[in-house]
Amino acid sequence: MKTMLLPLALGLSLSFASAGSTTAAETALPTFDKARTAIVITDPQNDFLSPKGKLYGLVADNMKKLGTIGNIETLMKTAKARGVTLAVDPLVYTLRDVDWSRAGALQRQLLDMGALRRTALSDPKGFEGSGADFYGPFKRYIHDGESIVVAPHKMYGPESNDLIYQLRARGIDTVVLGGLVANLCVDSHMRALMENGFRVYVVKDAVAAPGEDAYKAALVNYAMIANGVLTTEEAVKALSQ
Amino acid sequence: MKTMLLPLALGLSLSFASAGSTTAAETALPTFDKARTAIVITDPQNDFLSPKGKLYGLVADNMKKLGTIGNIETLMKTAKARGVTLAVDPLVYTLRDVDWSRAGALQRQLLDMGALRRTALSDPKGFEGSGADFYGPFKRYIHDGESIVVAPHKMYGPESNDLIYQLRARGIDTVVLGGLVANLCVDSHMRALMENGFRVYVVKDAVAAPGEDAYKAALVNYAMIANGVLTTEEAVKALSQ
Amino acid sequence: MKTMLLPLALGLSLSFASAGSTTAAETALPTFDKARTAIVITDPQNDFLSPKGKLYGLVADNMKKLGTIGNIETLMKTAKARGVTLAVDPLVYTLRDVDWSRAGALQRQLLDMGALRRTALSDPKGFEGSGADFYGPFKRYIHDGESIVVAPHKMYGPESNDLIYQLRARGIDTVVLGGLVANLCVDSHMRALMENGFRVYVVKDAVAAPGEDAYKAALVNYAMIANGVLTTEEAVKALSQ
Amino acid sequence: MKTMLLPLALGLSLSFASAGSTTAAETALPTFDKARTAIVITDPQNDFLSPKGKLYGLVADNMKKLGTIGNIETLMKTAKARGVTLAVDPLVYTLRDVDWSRAGALQRQLLDMGALRRTALSDPKGFEGSGADFYGPFKRYIHDGESIVVAPHKMYGPESNDLIYQLRARGIDTVVLGGLVANLCVDSHMRALMENGFRVYVVKDAVAAPGEDAYKAALVNYAMIANGVLTTEEAVKALSQ
Repeated sequence: MKTMLLPLALGLSLSFASAGSTTAAETALPTFDKARTAIVITDPQNDFLSPKGKLYGLVADNMKKLGTIGNIETLMKTAKARGVTLAVDPLVYTLRDVDWSRAGALQRQLLDMGALRRTALSDPKGFEGSGADFYGPFKRYIHDGESIVVAPHKMYGPESNDLIYQLRARGIDTVVLGGLVANLCVDSHMRALMENGFRVYVVKDAVAAPGEDAYKAALVNYAMIANGVLTTEEAVKALSQ
Repeated sequence: MKTMLLPLALGLSLSFASAGSTTAAETALPTFDKARTAIVITDPQNDFLSPKGKLYGLVADNMKKLGTIGNIETLMKTAKARGVTLAVDPLVYTLRDVDWSRAGALQRQLLDMGALRRTALSDPKGFEGSGADFYGPFKRYIHDGESIVVAPHKMYGPESNDLIYQLRARGIDTVVLGGLVANLCVDSHMRALMENGFRVYVVKDAVAAPGEDAYKAALVNYAMIANGVLTTEEAVKALSQ
Repeated sequence: MKTMLLPLALGLSLSFASAGSTTAAETALPTFDKARTAIVITDPQNDFLSPKGKLYGLVADNMKKLGTIGNIETLMKTAKARGVTLAVDPLVYTLRDVDWSRAGALQRQLLDMGALRRTALSDPKGFEGSGADFYGPFKRYIHDGESIVVAPHKMYGPESNDLIYQLRARGIDTVVLGGLVANLCVDSHMRALMENGFRVYVVKDAVAAPGEDAYKAALVNYAMIANGVLTTEEAVKALSQ
Repeated sequence: MKTMLLPLALGLSLSFASAGSTTAAETALPTFDKARTAIVITDPQNDFLSPKGKLYGLVADNMKKLGTIGNIETLMKTAKARGVTLAVDPLVYTLRDVDWSRAGALQRQLLDMGALRRTALSDPKGFEGSGADFYGPFKRYIHDGESIVVAPHKMYGPESNDLIYQLRARGIDTVVLGGLVANLCVDSHMRALMENGFRVYVVKDAVAAPGEDAYKAALVNYAMIANGVLTTEEAVKALSQ
């Protein structure tokens, strides 16, 4: 029994050990078919990324340590330079999204504090530059007429928007994933995309979490679940081959 | 064998026979728990409902015969009068939705002719009064600050938008369904909502199809699949109890 | 206005006209990438296909007219001969599936009459040769160790089983679809697969419906929604190129 | 800015702080409508729970510390004593599930080592007592003719099986969740169920993870995402009111 379990445990421990460190398996870069690959960024919005954002304070430390904003911009630039599809998937609540009787713990707080809120999807009033709007420096990549901007998700994953449909409609089956928040929307997107048959590579320094524990939680799950975990540098290298 | 099949066939034929005719089973009105019921209208937009709409010509005959526009308005009014949730689920394509390599036959034609098109979800330019905008006379019900306006669906069903999430978030488990097009978006919504565990009652004269055959096709499927098929008059009566 | 609508209506009418007839567009066979294509057959089970089956009487006329059983076998043989994945997606209710409070009209009847029923998924008792078991002559193709047999669907589409996951896990993005019942499970599979980004080609004589009206309903919807509608002969030709 | 962020950060930190500790919010037990509530247990199978199981070694430490097996049995007993629906959702791979070209890191290892494997869903050969079979002591609750045994999931969440359909078919909208593995299948079920509009309460000592870091990761995510996090004792108390 012990001898049978040992190699298995060792084999499995590869997945755990890789969280936070660099293993041999990770340094062998994946080969991407660029026509079938998209860079997907979740929640690149002011409330997370701008110093005035309602949720900035929660992720600021982790963002600075990882260089998240710069790394996301590097991924966006790489998408444009390499002809890879860029898709952004925002989190937005409207004025009508408050009476949800089954909101989870953190979602309830986000709704109550008016984070990521706009009047209505089709109403431009007060949206420009608001917490729900895209982070200013990213708009040149997002609004270039080529990027895919899907309808907002409402919880943490893409189950209730057109992200998967838009990717599939273009024959994309592989996603390089980053954005906010590491253990919430990014993790949920990783899981949901994989349940739908996508290969997912998470860029672990193009994300940010609300505190060290939440970031560690994200790394543990990325390492076990995803097809691969990359740094921004590795992702750029792999997409430039 | 024959004797065993006979009653079964008769039993089943109830479902078939009811298409287009009124059966005893239908005249027993369903009892709706109004707090758990929503009226859902698909595609109440100018391109279908306005005489200048790009697709109006295709459904005009069926709409006139059934009184579709008046019946949809009656349902919307009833929702407001009876405190029942009204949700509308539009079909909109953006400028970025054209390079879909797997569009189906009719979807390809809709994309190519620019039907139901707006620049982008967040871009108000040229939207007001366009074919993608809601039909003018319905806006007072849709934009009253109470109705749920979900993100557009992209094919025919609600698989890629937040309709189901918005209904579930409010504890709704029963849908009274109408809208355009009878055998396409209405049928797809009926199927998808039921696969997700909703009870669905289709209002057969608050829909319209592109021609008699398509309308008959819709009726055949409603009768077999839905929890019930109602006229607008019956739906109003059931919701007023 | 009239001149603008006219060509559009004509354009659209192509989709309608093709229901039941052969158009120029259909005779241009699609080109299939065999590594990315699967033949999917819904409900190839005794209760539909065997003369003793509980639902045989309902579809027998249509099956004889179309040659459904022979055509499905031809598709299965072609899959094996051409190295194309064959997947079958049965409809099975267990003893525990009776207390469904929201079953639709026909589903309620199927549950009540014990159609397509087995004790439990993991319980072999009484299953062999029952109405829920696969039609005998097809077992050699289904149980060859290569075909994919997914868990049963519970309503009409694949929303609640592993069909899509199994196809995606193998890189398949195109489906050639046939089986029972034309306007119910086949139509629901067509819609759900397409909402999930698959290209779907329906084989219109490898299906069968409960009566002429239901078959016509299926044809109307296939022609508008699917990527293409083929005869078995055309499907075999396209898969043999 | 600072004053605005401070209360928000404090407010949000409630969600983080509650991971692993008991807060006032948690001790106020939720009120369950028993007719609308199900206890859902993921992966209660030998390969995780039996000392001879292929994956037992990975979760054994955490299980002993938490009393996982005893706590799951307590939940199962409570379901039966209180008339609450019990649903189990196993993870099973068949012989045909090996050629998945997009398996994630840990899933690849599970497939390669033959964990949780049976020949085929319908094939009883070698299943009884195998690693894929249910843990012996739990069978009296699972096979009592009342519990819902859904088709296996294939990755970590219920996206590709009938769990959600079975719950919705019975009017259930609230889930008390436990099982294996804390940060994988349990976390994925929590997210997917909530995206589908269920209220989810996770029982944090009726789960187990492969190591302390993975367990901490699970707690962090439960606290932020779920509607509530309970101990087994609290869950039993809440279900006995």
